[in-house]
Amino acid sequence: MSLLNRKTAELVPYTPGEQPKGEKYIKINTNENPYPPSPKALEAAVKAVCEDLKLYPDPDMSRFIDAIAGFENVPRECIMAGNGSDELLAFSFSAFFEPQAQPVLFPDVTYSFYPVYCREYRVNYKEIPLDDNFNINPQDYSIPNGGIIIANPNAPTGIALGINDIRRLAKAAGGVLIIDEAYAAFGGETSKGLLEELDNILIVKTLSKSHSLAGMRAGYCIGSPELIDGIKRVKNSFNSYTMDRVAIECAAAALEDKEYFRCNTECIINTRNRVSARLREMGFLVLPSSANFIFISLPGTDGERLAGYYRENRILVRHLKSERIREWLRVSIGTDADMDEFLRVSCEFMVNR
Amino acid sequence: MSLLNRKTAELVPYTPGEQPKGEKYIKINTNENPYPPSPKALEAAVKAVCEDLKLYPDPDMSRFIDAIAGFENVPRECIMAGNGSDELLAFSFSAFFEPQAQPVLFPDVTYSFYPVYCREYRVNYKEIPLDDNFNINPQDYSIPNGGIIIANPNAPTGIALGINDIRRLAKAAGGVLIIDEAYAAFGGETSKGLLEELDNILIVKTLSKSHSLAGMRAGYCIGSPELIDGIKRVKNSFNSYTMDRVAIECAAAALEDKEYFRCNTECIINTRNRVSARLREMGFLVLPSSANFIFISLPGTDGERLAGYYRENRILVRHLKSERIREWLRVSIGTDADMDEFLRVSCEFMVNR
Repeated sequence: MSLLNRKTAELVPYTPGEQPKGEKYIKINTNENPYPPSPKALEAAVKAVCEDLKLYPDPDMSRFIDAIAGFENVPRECIMAGNGSDELLAFSFSAFFEPQAQPVLFPDVTYSFYPVYCREYRVNYKEIPLDDNFNINPQDYSIPNGGIIIANPNAPTGIALGINDIRRLAKAAGGVLIIDEAYAAFGGETSKGLLEELDNILIVKTLSKSHSLAGMRAGYCIGSPELIDGIKRVKNSFNSYTMDRVAIECAAAALEDKEYFRCNTECIINTRNRVSARLREMGFLVLPSSANFIFISLPGTDGERLAGYYRENRILVRHLKSERIREWLRVSIGTDADMDEFLRVSCEFMVNR
Repeated sequence: MSLLNRKTAELVPYTPGEQPKGEKYIKINTNENPYPPSPKALEAAVKAVCEDLKLYPDPDMSRFIDAIAGFENVPRECIMAGNGSDELLAFSFSAFFEPQAQPVLFPDVTYSFYPVYCREYRVNYKEIPLDDNFNINPQDYSIPNGGIIIANPNAPTGIALGINDIRRLAKAAGGVLIIDEAYAAFGGETSKGLLEELDNILIVKTLSKSHSLAGMRAGYCIGSPELIDGIKRVKNSFNSYTMDRVAIECAAAALEDKEYFRCNTECIINTRNRVSARLREMGFLVLPSSANFIFISLPGTDGERLAGYYRENRILVRHLKSERIREWLRVSIGTDADMDEFLRVSCEFMVNR
């Protein structure tokens, strides 16, 4: 007899992108930022290490919450922080979606963690197909549902949705609309402005990509005080101290260095636009990206085969296992030097195929 | 209409001990270790900060798992690590206990997070009273159940259970027996030796107290490969990267500095024994502790009043809100200087009451 409960025995966990150990690759497979975090963030982290690690962290993460309030210009009672946005997404599924009830809706091509959360929290779900151009059509979500979750810009497509479409989704939602803005810093439009008119939206953000802190685990969410209270209830029923002392200080200092953030994201946007244009010239399809990655394909070429070619040339990109996007690859935007090498190898593939 | 689901609306979250901001107290209220972490742990943390925070951590936490395998002399496939032992306890409730089925059993006086996890994961539970001397009687657990969880040594009593009693509990468990060994480093007997004969026990440990890393959040659990697989399934359905790069390196280095660990725990045990003896001489009841705290009372004196007296004298201790232990206080073992001041104030109270 199994010692795991039924739900756990049936879980199909999320598989993150490869983190190579030892060998040297150009790593553009997991949407990390190619530039280091702000020096001020590192300084704050070192200081926190040398202070009081023997004492528990502040369970309210006040130092980080204050920094978020300043960065986003949102009141503290509308903010909650966590150990990466993945943790906050998990808490949201636990707090807002009723198990074994109306399905939660999300696109068929999106962050593949959403169905995983549904299974962990026993939430029914229904995948709504993107249209033929990989766009979300809000009217497709006007069916009975227990809530909606979308990524904006969407992943892995990189396509952003405008505020009016978000408003339509919020009105279609039979509960909470979660807007995962992990990539919004790179050109998408944040839905923050809708918070004053809508009380059922929760915006989730991460410092992993926008602030080069994937290795530190820091995320936050913004919503009405009722929704924030729901997240806090679940967090305080799970782990009193989700963020450690070093992460709290480091993340706060990173948010406070707005100039560094501005330069960093601007630089990635410029590289993305240059690389996208060059790939199109070569004959690749490149979806219009508002993120720090691009979604590309060569019609008639299997994505897995193309990914293998890059790997042979010491470049890691992401091929996702889903029939509809089997010809597509998600390529994170690296440094200009990384991307020049990527373009060189891409060109070589085109010539030799 | 509420936007929270029914379970979340009814949650009664755990309340951690106070973390004072600003003002200076002798802080013996949350079982932190009064000595700093190993210098090698701090060095490893600083090094990790200065390396690659822009990249995601190793989702398998291999560096820390290797260190645990060396420290515990247990194979890697029997180990899982997490963002504090609280997180691993939460994952255990999610993985092993069937919602809305047979109750999970635990003592009426124990870590008050256990009923909170039950509510978060919709697990029924039944509290089994400790006997009049605050001991666990294993035969009380021979009733239909969906699993058992105990802390050994128990908190807040500090009383440890022997291996034979643990074996009896494992046999009584209608599923998994979780043994929370958060405090076992200070004199309790670990149940690790039972892993070869029993496949339904999961031992959960933390570096918060034993390795002075409460502020860094690092814990681990040991059990059969089946149970470890269950924990991994839940973790990978919750957050791919629960431990950040700094915590992984810092925790690994802390475990590797065995000599520092030995001296640190020995020192706390000596202080505990000295303070316990002195308090008994003064007329306090002091339960026999195998932990880094003591559970004390003055019969006829309300615990809240006594805690208030300590607070007026700049000392924070923990009074837990439960009728059965209203006369009792949990006092963490601080430095010798901290405890001398605690003894002085205790003596003053006895004289003036």
